[in-house]
Amino acid sequence: MLDNLIYFFNPQGVAVIGASANSSKLSHGILRNLISYDWSGKAYPVNPSSSQILELTCYPSIKDVPDPLDLAVIILPAEVIPNVLEDCGKRGVKAVIVISGGFREVGEGGLTLENKCLTIIRNHGMRMIGPNCVGTMNVLNGLNTTFIRGMPTRGGIGFLSQSGAVCGGIVDHVVRKGFGFSHFISLGNEADVNETDIIEFLAKDKNTRVIAAYVESIYDGKRFLRVCQQVSGIKPIVIIKAGRTSEGAKAVSSHTGALAGVQQAYSAAFKQAGLIEVSTVEDLLNVAMTLDYCSLPMGNRAAIVTNAGGPAALASDHLADYGISLAQIDAQTKSKLRKVLTGAAQVDNPIDMLGAADAVEYGFALEQVLIDVGVDLAVPILVPQALVNPSNVAEAIVSQSAKKTKPVIACLMGDESIDAASQILHEGRVPMVDYPEKIGECAGALFKYSQWKRNEHHNNQVELPVDKRQAEMLLMSLKEKVFGERTTRQLLNTYGIPLVPGEFTDTQ
Amino acid sequence: MLDNLIYFFNPQGVAVIGASANSSKLSHGILRNLISYDWSGKAYPVNPSSSQILELTCYPSIKDVPDPLDLAVIILPAEVIPNVLEDCGKRGVKAVIVISGGFREVGEGGLTLENKCLTIIRNHGMRMIGPNCVGTMNVLNGLNTTFIRGMPTRGGIGFLSQSGAVCGGIVDHVVRKGFGFSHFISLGNEADVNETDIIEFLAKDKNTRVIAAYVESIYDGKRFLRVCQQVSGIKPIVIIKAGRTSEGAKAVSSHTGALAGVQQAYSAAFKQAGLIEVSTVEDLLNVAMTLDYCSLPMGNRAAIVTNAGGPAALASDHLADYGISLAQIDAQTKSKLRKVLTGAAQVDNPIDMLGAADAVEYGFALEQVLIDVGVDLAVPILVPQALVNPSNVAEAIVSQSAKKTKPVIACLMGDESIDAASQILHEGRVPMVDYPEKIGECAGALFKYSQWKRNEHHNNQVELPVDKRQAEMLLMSLKEKVFGERTTRQLLNTYGIPLVPGEFTDTQ
Repeated sequence: MLDNLIYFFNPQGVAVIGASANSSKLSHGILRNLISYDWSGKAYPVNPSSSQILELTCYPSIKDVPDPLDLAVIILPAEVIPNVLEDCGKRGVKAVIVISGGFREVGEGGLTLENKCLTIIRNHGMRMIGPNCVGTMNVLNGLNTTFIRGMPTRGGIGFLSQSGAVCGGIVDHVVRKGFGFSHFISLGNEADVNETDIIEFLAKDKNTRVIAAYVESIYDGKRFLRVCQQVSGIKPIVIIKAGRTSEGAKAVSSHTGALAGVQQAYSAAFKQAGLIEVSTVEDLLNVAMTLDYCSLPMGNRAAIVTNAGGPAALASDHLADYGISLAQIDAQTKSKLRKVLTGAAQVDNPIDMLGAADAVEYGFALEQVLIDVGVDLAVPILVPQALVNPSNVAEAIVSQSAKKTKPVIACLMGDESIDAASQILHEGRVPMVDYPEKIGECAGALFKYSQWKRNEHHNNQVELPVDKRQAEMLLMSLKEKVFGERTTRQLLNTYGIPLVPGEFTDTQ
Repeated sequence: MLDNLIYFFNPQGVAVIGASANSSKLSHGILRNLISYDWSGKAYPVNPSSSQILELTCYPSIKDVPDPLDLAVIILPAEVIPNVLEDCGKRGVKAVIVISGGFREVGEGGLTLENKCLTIIRNHGMRMIGPNCVGTMNVLNGLNTTFIRGMPTRGGIGFLSQSGAVCGGIVDHVVRKGFGFSHFISLGNEADVNETDIIEFLAKDKNTRVIAAYVESIYDGKRFLRVCQQVSGIKPIVIIKAGRTSEGAKAVSSHTGALAGVQQAYSAAFKQAGLIEVSTVEDLLNVAMTLDYCSLPMGNRAAIVTNAGGPAALASDHLADYGISLAQIDAQTKSKLRKVLTGAAQVDNPIDMLGAADAVEYGFALEQVLIDVGVDLAVPILVPQALVNPSNVAEAIVSQSAKKTKPVIACLMGDESIDAASQILHEGRVPMVDYPEKIGECAGALFKYSQWKRNEHHNNQVELPVDKRQAEMLLMSLKEKVFGERTTRQLLNTYGIPLVPGEFTDTQ
């Protein structure tokens, strides 16, 4: 059944059920996105009140849509969706994306409706993403079933999110900057397809080199961790979990009481499964980019090559925060640097070539540190200067980085003047950040993942903190508010807490 | 003598000694910047090999420059600078900025040269910024003595830096984004004017509402903390100190061995003096902006008003990290919100108005939470949506924020589509960040500073960790490598470590 997921990303035909001719409607935006990029399949608007939308034949019902048809994107009021799903099933649709809200998230009535939808799609052997999501993008073939404005550049990051808004915000952020993605998947209520299914799918997708995930809650923690541990052995997974704090947990759901210490348990389990946890969306993007572009380092010794001392000092602080130390530069390397760089340059690490350093000096210094056996990764830092063209420096960095497998992580400390240089670095697969303090998290993640891979933690059994489903079922089955030993034992057991052996006897 | 500092920022005439006719030279860039903005004073290039540069009369020597003349910016080889300073003194120049390097930072010979310069300027009653700096900007009157490309918007942040490159990198970052500055000061080697002098100057400047500082080392810690404590009572000082870690300290100076625990001492002293310490340049900018734009909150209870649950959850986590809690929304406020907002909206905190929320809904919800007595600050979050114009939402936020003194900190999670909205917020003095995770540090700093002010810590005596100058002098005067009790006592004393009383006796 998992193989059906391919129909979400490589369908031959897609129907948009509820597509509107009114350009101010989200359903119109979906249809427009579907035909605006490189996707070469057939798009079919479905709406009984129109005969043509965006120059495409509009069909009164999904039953009337011709072949090829694999996927239906549905944006209609919640209450009519079960009937539409029935029609989809009868028409032979393989996969559906339900954009509409009004299900589990609005209360009990919505949950009943959602379960009804689930039964229907299961009966027909269909798969469903959503409800209450913003759709999906296969960036590689240009398929876009969202109403989000813009589409990221093609690349190796597969992104999944339990928040549609986080998808939208990220697309807005990356479109101008050049981060490259393979897939963008908004999961919504996860009635059928959930985060673990998508992680398994992206693990098998050969174009996805890194998986990035925004999650709020994980229902089947056991399966999630087992899958992540397997996948982490093949490709890295970067994760941000909202609800770390009790305030955040309150925000994630006003229904779920916050459990003190839960975050530590999550983080410990994530770590054991090889997941790379970050705490900001910006770090999620930067770390995923770094893991996509770079080979893993053999150690934690970084050489900084800079035209500015202050930013190099800040970078050193933040590298140290993540366990990366300044490499001891070899005497021979230093002597070569001394011969070529300006007289006042500092050839010890950080290698400070001073403000006037140009592309030739960056190229030379980078080449030298990358062949130095005491250096595991290189960090070129450029503060834009009036007389130096950042694009030339970017080209020199790309050219040296391409010669070696050692990671190179660049910092161009600017905004206004580095747009072109930033594109060159992205195209040359050199990760790039805009402030020196952001290098630490990127280099640290590379090193942490390399250690996890080296230590082959992925062969170990993941220790699970909580079997939430068991605990929930147990608690729901109980009427008492104060538990005796027997119940307490069962409950502690679901949390994996070891107990002194004991038996219940009914005789005295 | 401190009053002379005014000549750096409000001179009637400025000479650029060493100005070149060659547009690829930094000295040409300085002259160009001097005449490119609104500054209305006289600019005089000084160079014996040209008669005119950039259509300005060029003078062979500083002696030939006519009145009015207050300030000289010098960019010439280090070894000729003492003579030039003599000439400046004789000509009646009040203040000099020495851009050139080749002094203390290159070793003993450079230090001698620097001390020679210092003697000359002291003899003539002049003040000097530098050497080895990138100059200054008075953003308010348009005076720019740097070669940095671009000039920030006018505003309330006075920025000083011991790294010229950090100045350059920040200007590059802020020009497009709209952060407002009063001054930009690169301090270089601080032979004469140092960070504490500038903090005192900015404290007295009525247009500077917040002081932001990048520092690597503080020589006279006692005076620095005393001044900062006084100034913090008047206006906030935000500080980033490079060299927090031993790797960073190594980067700041390969001469100074890193002292374990020094950072804790710095941080403790900073805190006591009311300084707001941050660890990234981006936070330095965001926190300074927030302190510039906002009144201080009466408490730590925030109300989030959002069109997206995920980003609100992330914001809640990061607010909690900095001691800000989610406010309990009053029942009456909730009932008013329920009447106006869309049916499925969440009227508990975070107030989630769902994806389609428009400017009217933002305005209404913000108005309600700002009059709720249980709310100390408001955090509107917008993820750009296809059908909502971010600029209209920004205008609604500005209009509600202007009605109340409670702080409003906005997050527009995007890049591509929020440029115009971001300008509206800056102009309306509403601090704005581009990721939800960045709100925490901003709100936390406001709250921390309000607490410090309220507790009137500024009336207490600052406890000083180290009198470094005394310790250094003592260590230099000693020849032994192992110290006896008498020397050890003196040394411990300079570090402020309390000792059991004792006397040295020379009889038995």
